Amino acid sequence: MPQPPTYDDVQGAGARVAAYAHSTPVLRSRLINEQLGVEVVFKCENFQRMGAFKFRGAFNALSQFSPEQRRAGVVAYSSGNHAQAVALSARLLDIPATIVMPHDAPAAKVAATKSYGGQVVTYDRYAEDREEIGRALAAERGLTLIPPYDHPHVIAGQGTAAKELFDEVGELDALFVPLGGGGLLSGTALSTRALSPDCRLYGVEPEAGNDGQQSLRQGSIVHIDTPKTIADGAQTQHLGTYTFDIIRRDVTDILTATDAELVEAMRIFASVMKIVVEPTGCLGFAAVRDLATQLRGQRIGVIISGGNIDLDRFASLLVA
Amino acid sequence: MPQPPTYDDVQGAGARVAAYAHSTPVLRSRLINEQLGVEVVFKCENFQRMGAFKFRGAFNALSQFSPEQRRAGVVAYSSGNHAQAVALSARLLDIPATIVMPHDAPAAKVAATKSYGGQVVTYDRYAEDREEIGRALAAERGLTLIPPYDHPHVIAGQGTAAKELFDEVGELDALFVPLGGGGLLSGTALSTRALSPDCRLYGVEPEAGNDGQQSLRQGSIVHIDTPKTIADGAQTQHLGTYTFDIIRRDVTDILTATDAELVEAMRIFASVMKIVVEPTGCLGFAAVRDLATQLRGQRIGVIISGGNIDLDRFASLLVA
Repeated sequence: MPQPPTYDDVQGAGARVAAYAHSTPVLRSRLINEQLGVEVVFKCENFQRMGAFKFRGAFNALSQFSPEQRRAGVVAYSSGNHAQAVALSARLLDIPATIVMPHDAPAAKVAATKSYGGQVVTYDRYAEDREEIGRALAAERGLTLIPPYDHPHVIAGQGTAAKELFDEVGELDALFVPLGGGGLLSGTALSTRALSPDCRLYGVEPEAGNDGQQSLRQGSIVHIDTPKTIADGAQTQHLGTYTFDIIRRDVTDILTATDAELVEAMRIFASVMKIVVEPTGCLGFAAVRDLATQLRGQRIGVIISGGNIDLDRFASLLVA
Repeated sequence: MPQPPTYDDVQGAGARVAAYAHSTPVLRSRLINEQLGVEVVFKCENFQRMGAFKFRGAFNALSQFSPEQRRAGVVAYSSGNHAQAVALSARLLDIPATIVMPHDAPAAKVAATKSYGGQVVTYDRYAEDREEIGRALAAERGLTLIPPYDHPHVIAGQGTAAKELFDEVGELDALFVPLGGGGLLSGTALSTRALSPDCRLYGVEPEAGNDGQQSLRQGSIVHIDTPKTIADGAQTQHLGTYTFDIIRRDVTDILTATDAELVEAMRIFASVMKIVVEPTGCLGFAAVRDLATQLRGQRIGVIISGGNIDLDRFASLLVA
């Protein structure tokens, strides 16, 4: 089994993705700071290529394929953003890509994956096991499976977002990060411990799917049924082995947000900051709003993980 | 009558607003560039303070008030963004502000104006003359009237957006700018002629209210009835004297966009670029999409003028 990633791997990933990924903007809102009494900086991965941080990890993984692996191709399973990330990275690196996606994935994500040249295979996310399907395809066709989060190269790539954030704004008092399978959170943890060691680091997951919080409290990985939440990027059933070990070591705590809190955060992002954020991307800010009185006067970072949401869905949530 | 503004005045305005206005980000989209075959840079004034470029002109004007003018206060008439811009600038400079707004102005704009401490007086935009109401209030109460566009300090302030754009990206082949009363377009013209002299410069107004286009063709200012268009920031009845003289001298042509084209541009901004743009702010990009085949291979600038739109209205346009 490959070694767990370290901050050195994040630095390597940073050099690897630099010419391909956007160094996304850090946005601030005076109005939000005044209303919350907190100084918040938002790292906007909704402006990343294909609309989410996932491009960083996928590109970092695929760019380390051997010539044989490149020729045979890559397979990935994903509720959406990892699919697009692998498909786009594969196109940029001229690698054939097969993507296993749930049949009810947002239409925009399926269409984008296909537009990047990925071959899409669908499954029922409430009845079938995507990991099994992915492994079977890998074995049958000699493809390399790149999982959505539990892979050292993926984790190191995701850590480059927080590295850019700290490089730009310096140390922070606390940082709030969306949590699904833990790729973004564990990569962020590597950068945080290296660049802002005293920063408190929080993962935030949907209340309906708090397996991460349960895992941290109980000291081992808890498996749950696929949670029903609007945060489709965080509908994971369990943390990974790599991600849990890093989270357990480096993360201060895991918090949760309700779907209603995500919608309210999404409305504030649209009306005050003029940005489109998908529900999963609202997790960090929802937690900051919830804890604002405790965070008063502090310098807080929020990672906005992505902005990929069907316009019809987005519109219906804005007026809900 | 004060002298017409020059690029020197834009530079002066730049120094005056630097500590108060955001230097807004310039965004690009590889997907849009690939689809249009054009290299487009977007100057995002929807991320400006109070959500639109109007802050630049208002702040530049109010910061040049005499002590007597500051004490007596400012009055402004506006369909929305100028109102918020004057109210916010007045608050920052500790000047009392009275704002004349149409009774059907977007609720978000009225609420924001009041939240900045502005006193709001409403009128019927299809029956009453806002300029008369503004002048009457100025005379009765000794207030200084700051018109929304036809004022040298306002024009010079608006020109700072294009100045920042050229300072950041260098010269361009063409630049597309929303056109209402011409404050943004004429200020942009001053910066364009100084910083990218060969750049073609286009104003874009709603097809239903093409008074600017008519004025340019006929060589004198044409007055029209208040046009019915979703571009509420460009529902002006005529250009100003200052703005028309600069536009006539420095602008290549004036184009139009239909409401349907604005909605399509707004949908692309939300789905591809993850940003919220108000209908008026979509004028420039709508024209670029229309002319894409003629612009193939060129380096094109678009000024996104603002992002202030009620969420309900925004949602209803996204699914239209």
